[in-house]
Amino acid sequence: MSSPTATAKGYGISDTSKYTDFSVKEFKLKTPQSDDVTLDIEVCGVCGSDVHTITGGWGELSAPWVTPGHEIIGKVTHVGDNVKEFKVGQRVGVGAQVLSCLKCDRCNEDNEQYCPEQVDTYNAKFPDGVESQGGYSTAIRTNQRFVFAIPDAIKSEDAAPMLCAGLTVFSPLVRNGTGPGKTVGIVGIGGLGHFAIQFAHHLGAKVIVFSHSPNKKEDALSLGADEFVSTSDEGFADKYFDKIDYILSAADANSIPLGDLLSTLKIDGKLTSVGLPDEAWEGLKPQSMASNAACVGCSHIGSKKEANQMLKLAAEKGIKPIIDEVLPMSQAAKAIESVKNNTVRYRYVLKQDLA
Amino acid sequence: MSSPTATAKGYGISDTSKYTDFSVKEFKLKTPQSDDVTLDIEVCGVCGSDVHTITGGWGELSAPWVTPGHEIIGKVTHVGDNVKEFKVGQRVGVGAQVLSCLKCDRCNEDNEQYCPEQVDTYNAKFPDGVESQGGYSTAIRTNQRFVFAIPDAIKSEDAAPMLCAGLTVFSPLVRNGTGPGKTVGIVGIGGLGHFAIQFAHHLGAKVIVFSHSPNKKEDALSLGADEFVSTSDEGFADKYFDKIDYILSAADANSIPLGDLLSTLKIDGKLTSVGLPDEAWEGLKPQSMASNAACVGCSHIGSKKEANQMLKLAAEKGIKPIIDEVLPMSQAAKAIESVKNNTVRYRYVLKQDLA
Repeated sequence: MSSPTATAKGYGISDTSKYTDFSVKEFKLKTPQSDDVTLDIEVCGVCGSDVHTITGGWGELSAPWVTPGHEIIGKVTHVGDNVKEFKVGQRVGVGAQVLSCLKCDRCNEDNEQYCPEQVDTYNAKFPDGVESQGGYSTAIRTNQRFVFAIPDAIKSEDAAPMLCAGLTVFSPLVRNGTGPGKTVGIVGIGGLGHFAIQFAHHLGAKVIVFSHSPNKKEDALSLGADEFVSTSDEGFADKYFDKIDYILSAADANSIPLGDLLSTLKIDGKLTSVGLPDEAWEGLKPQSMASNAACVGCSHIGSKKEANQMLKLAAEKGIKPIIDEVLPMSQAAKAIESVKNNTVRYRYVLKQDLA
Repeated sequence: MSSPTATAKGYGISDTSKYTDFSVKEFKLKTPQSDDVTLDIEVCGVCGSDVHTITGGWGELSAPWVTPGHEIIGKVTHVGDNVKEFKVGQRVGVGAQVLSCLKCDRCNEDNEQYCPEQVDTYNAKFPDGVESQGGYSTAIRTNQRFVFAIPDAIKSEDAAPMLCAGLTVFSPLVRNGTGPGKTVGIVGIGGLGHFAIQFAHHLGAKVIVFSHSPNKKEDALSLGADEFVSTSDEGFADKYFDKIDYILSAADANSIPLGDLLSTLKIDGKLTSVGLPDEAWEGLKPQSMASNAACVGCSHIGSKKEANQMLKLAAEKGIKPIIDEVLPMSQAAKAIESVKNNTVRYRYVLKQDLA
């Protein structure tokens, strides 16, 4: 079989203080292996993580030049000898993870996103020393475990944002029992939250949305919320005391009224924050969780098994993101600014213009 | 039937700055009701909560004079017309809670300790306006739901500390699946922790004890720990990565190496802190729990159902506290000082000397 392409081109950032100064460069793809899939990228979603990374909010860049993007849809151009799941020409996706050890208990038990050797899609390194680069680019190559088949029923620009924003909320929702007979709270309506409302609704739960933006009420209800609660209203939590089985917060962990939200949980309930602030939680005491044995936790993207479940549900139920605009990749800076300034409603998608 | 006694005498504190100046006073017991049990107190354990309360650590006293003590064993002297579970002369116990609404879902589902109308055994008020007073006293009266039969196999001084220290750890252990095939971490070996080791062991779990006091290793192993880990050793957590299903911390929540402990949890694992510090958790970020979807939570004593399970297990397995000394109640100050200075190993019990 022919050798796959060795390089790709992308839009990247060299200086976190100039995070909209994208330059086009050629970069090396990982050394091809028999389990690898190579794809030409068609579209890529713009995620909050892209902004955190290229602005230096989560620390300095790990390489001199970094191409962000981990909501990638494209067409397979090459498969290694061990790849049976995909074939050349097939439409597939890659999310926020491109490798793990694939040998440990976590990898063997559909928890590869928690493997200690997990490799992020960009701003990280493959074991061969090659820098991982993201999807604001022409191509990506990675192990088949981290490649997802995209159902025909989902358009590429709708599928892209599911691969990080969608999966990040789908995984904790299903792991924490979201389904018929359950009442689930969703906090924060943004790129992640607007998927969470749809998934929780279509998984069969009653959905209560908590937001400090009353102007998002209509969006929340149209996405499947049963009730919308403005957290700016005094005593908003009183009516929901002991009513909620599980809360997923996609808002900044430090901007939410944590004590009030915890009071709405039933006994042994849990609040998972997928909002990852730069600062530690303020003022959280064990006592805040003593009155109902509540707990607070976190979650990290999702497994391939969950990605496949999510894509199946999305295809069946017509779940899709609300997209501001599909822009050519050369206009990445416009999308980045909108995400940074929180004017995005609810996702930008970039379309290939380098290939 | 004759009327029960209207009053009792006890050792109490009036000024949190003079928390060893116990004075003897007579006080009123709650208005007798048909579901009430009245008992003459034989012994009462000395709990960390007693110290937090009478030193003002958890806020000012709610009454001009407060008798602490909520690990109470005594003999029934009177039962109301509706009481079928207990009879006069029977040995019974009362723990850290003396009332709840007994009508709400939580009360109906064996979660009465999480009822919003729960009344603490002392430093609180009954609905009739009578101040609740604790067990450093001659008698107590309360609703039968908060009275526990004590198995013959357990001596009174051994049973007393179970009713708060024991139940506070037994409840979260059983609610979080402690049993055969599970590995449970216990953090902190004190009044609570030394019960937690025994319960976790006799519930069938593998028990790993984490402590910053290497001199407690022998005690830990003799109580049933399978392994003892000194948290002062650098990298102590590395060996336990992904090994522990559940952690119960009975140490001060701010004194434990939280990040290291969380790293030992399996996916979706939980750490419950029953240590309630005056200050908030320091430096806890959602990110600290992202690598394994862990969570941190709290718990509040236990239900009557759990108290009965605990006493049955203790009777069957010979579980009992390690008691420093059984002192006459008039020497309460000595026990209080030892608990405050953390020289207690592991529980003081006070014996009746006023009746």
